[in-house]
Amino acid sequence: MSNVNIKPLADRVLVEPAAAEEKTASGLFIPDTAKEKPQKGTVIAVGNGKKDEPLTVKVGDTVLYGKYSGTELSFDGQDYLIMREADILAII
Amino acid sequence: MSNVNIKPLADRVLVEPAAAEEKTASGLFIPDTAKEKPQKGTVIAVGNGKKDEPLTVKVGDTVLYGKYSGTELSFDGQDYLIMREADILAII
Amino acid sequence: MSNVNIKPLADRVLVEPAAAEEKTASGLFIPDTAKEKPQKGTVIAVGNGKKDEPLTVKVGDTVLYGKYSGTELSFDGQDYLIMREADILAII
Amino acid sequence: MSNVNIKPLADRVLVEPAAAEEKTASGLFIPDTAKEKPQKGTVIAVGNGKKDEPLTVKVGDTVLYGKYSGTELSFDGQDYLIMREADILAII
Amino acid sequence: MSNVNIKPLADRVLVEPAAAEEKTASGLFIPDTAKEKPQKGTVIAVGNGKKDEPLTVKVGDTVLYGKYSGTELSFDGQDYLIMREADILAII
Amino acid sequence: MSNVNIKPLADRVLVEPAAAEEKTASGLFIPDTAKEKPQKGTVIAVGNGKKDEPLTVKVGDTVLYGKYSGTELSFDGQDYLIMREADILAII
Amino acid sequence: MSNVNIKPLADRVLVEPAAAEEKTASGLFIPDTAKEKPQKGTVIAVGNGKKDEPLTVKVGDTVLYGKYSGTELSFDGQDYLIMREADILAII
Repeated sequence: MSNVNIKPLADRVLVEPAAAEEKTASGLFIPDTAKEKPQKGTVIAVGNGKKDEPLTVKVGDTVLYGKYSGTELSFDGQDYLIMREADILAII
Repeated sequence: MSNVNIKPLADRVLVEPAAAEEKTASGLFIPDTAKEKPQKGTVIAVGNGKKDEPLTVKVGDTVLYGKYSGTELSFDGQDYLIMREADILAII
Repeated sequence: MSNVNIKPLADRVLVEPAAAEEKTASGLFIPDTAKEKPQKGTVIAVGNGKKDEPLTVKVGDTVLYGKYSGTELSFDGQDYLIMREADILAII
Repeated sequence: MSNVNIKPLADRVLVEPAAAEEKTASGLFIPDTAKEKPQKGTVIAVGNGKKDEPLTVKVGDTVLYGKYSGTELSFDGQDYLIMREADILAII
Repeated sequence: MSNVNIKPLADRVLVEPAAAEEKTASGLFIPDTAKEKPQKGTVIAVGNGKKDEPLTVKVGDTVLYGKYSGTELSFDGQDYLIMREADILAII
Repeated sequence: MSNVNIKPLADRVLVEPAAAEEKTASGLFIPDTAKEKPQKGTVIAVGNGKKDEPLTVKVGDTVLYGKYSGTELSFDGQDYLIMREADILAII
Repeated sequence: MSNVNIKPLADRVLVEPAAAEEKTASGLFIPDTAKEKPQKGTVIAVGNGKKDEPLTVKVGDTVLYGKYSGTELSFDGQDYLIMREADILAII
C-alpha cells in the first residue's frame, strides 16, 4: 500500500487500483458479460465525509467499484483513482 | 446459500441468483410478455443502510428483483449480484 | 382474492388485476381515447411503507392504476403486478 | 354534480369536466392562441393529501386545470378526470 | 384594475398584462435583443402560498415577468395570465 | 450608480452592467478563450432572499457574473440585468 | 501566491492554476488517457460557504480540480479560476 500525501475532499476517497494478476490470486473473477464489471483496489486516503455523514470505508480497505468510477491521477509513477464513496460497491 | 466475505456499502445488498430450475419447483412462473420480468435470488450479505434508514431485507431472505438490477461479480466460481435495496421488489 | 406469501418492500403493493369482464359488471367503463387508461385490481399484499409514511391502501382494496404501472409476476398460474403505491390513482 | 364512490389517493382529485356550452354561459372564454388553455370542471372527490399537506380544493369547487392534466375514466356513462391538486390552477 | 372572482391555488398569481402603450408612458423600455424580455402586468388575485411560504406579491402590485410565463385565460373579454410567483422577476 | 424603483423578488438582484471601458481601468481583464467569461456590474437593488436565506450581496457591491446570466430590462435609457444571487460569482 | 481583492460568493473558491512546469517538479504526473484529468492550483480566496456548511479548503491550500471546472478570469495579468468547492477533488 502506497503512502501519499493527498487529502480527498468531503465524501471522496483515493483508491490504488489492484494489479491485474492480483485478481486471480484472490479467487475473485469478473465474468465476461455485457454488464458493467466492478474493479478492485485499496483505499489510500479518505475525506472527512459530508455534513453529518462520516465515511464508512477506511484507509487500507480493499474495495470494489464500478469500472468507470473516479478520476485518474498518478504520483511518483503510481496510478490512483479519486472517487466518491457512493461509487464504491463493497468492502471485501 | 454461499458464505462469502463481502460487505456491501450503505444500502447495497449482495444477492446470489437462483438457478433456473429452482423457479419451476417453487411454483413461481414468470410470464413471457414484453414487460420487464423479476428475478429471484437469496440475500448473502447486506450493508448498514443509509443514515437513519436501516435495511429491511436480511441475510437468507429470498427476494425478487428487476432483470437488469445490480452489478455482476463472481467469487470462487459462483456468480453474485450487488444491488441497492431499492432494486428489490419483494421478499417471498 | 388470492392468498400468496409475498411481502412487497417499502412502498410497494401487490395487485391482482381484475378480469376483463368484471369491468363491465361494476359499471366502470374506460373510454377509448388516446389518453392513458386506468386499470382495476385488488390489493393482495402491501409493504411497510417508507420511513414516516405508512401506506394508505389495505389488503382487499379495489384500486385503479395506470395501464403501464408495475412489474408483472405470476404464482400458481395467477398473474400479479407489483407496483409503488404512488402508481395507484384511487380506491373504488 | 355527480355522486360517485371513488376515493382518490394522496394529493389526487377527481374532477367532472364542465360541458362545452357551460363555458360561454359563465362568461369564461378561452382565447384561441398557441398557449396551453385551461379547462373548467367540478371537484367530485378529493384525497387526504400528502403528509402534513392537506388539500386546498373541496368537493363542489369549480376549478381550472391544464388541458392535458389527469387520467380519464368514466363511471355510469359519465367521464371524469383524476389529477394531482398541483395540476389545478385556480378555483373560480 | 379588474375585479374577478378567481382564487389562484397555492403559489399561483393572476396577472392582468399591461397594455402595450402603457409601457412607454412609464419610462420602461424593453431593449430589442435576443435575450428573453420581461413583461409588465398588475396582480389581480393571489393564492395562499405553499406550506410555510406565504406569497410576497399583493393584489395591485405592478410586476415584471418572463415573456412565456403562465397560462392564458380570459374573463368578460379581458385576458389574464395565471402563473407561479417564482415566474415573477420584480415588483416595480 | 443609478436610482431605480424596482424591487427584485426573493433571491433576485438588479445589476447595472459596467461599461466596457471601465473594465480596463480597474485592471480586470477577461482572457479571450473558449470558456464562459464573467461580466462586471454594480448591484442596484436586492430582493429579500428566500426563506431563512438572506442575500449576501448589498446595494453598491461590484459583482462578477456569468455572461448569459439574468434577464435584460431597461429603464429611462439605462440597461439592467435582473438575476438570481446564485448567478453571481464574486464581489470585487 | 497572489494577493487579489476578490470575495467569492457562497461555496465558491478562487484558484490560481499552477504553471505547467511546476507539475513535474512536485512529482505529480497526469497520465495521458481518455479519462478527465485533474489540474493543480493554489486557493487564493474562499467564500463564506452555504448555510450551515462552512468551506473546507483554506487560502493557501494546493488543490486538485477537474480540467473543465470553474470560470476563467484574470487580474493584473494573472489568470484565475473561480469554482465551487464541490469541484475540488483533493488537497495535496
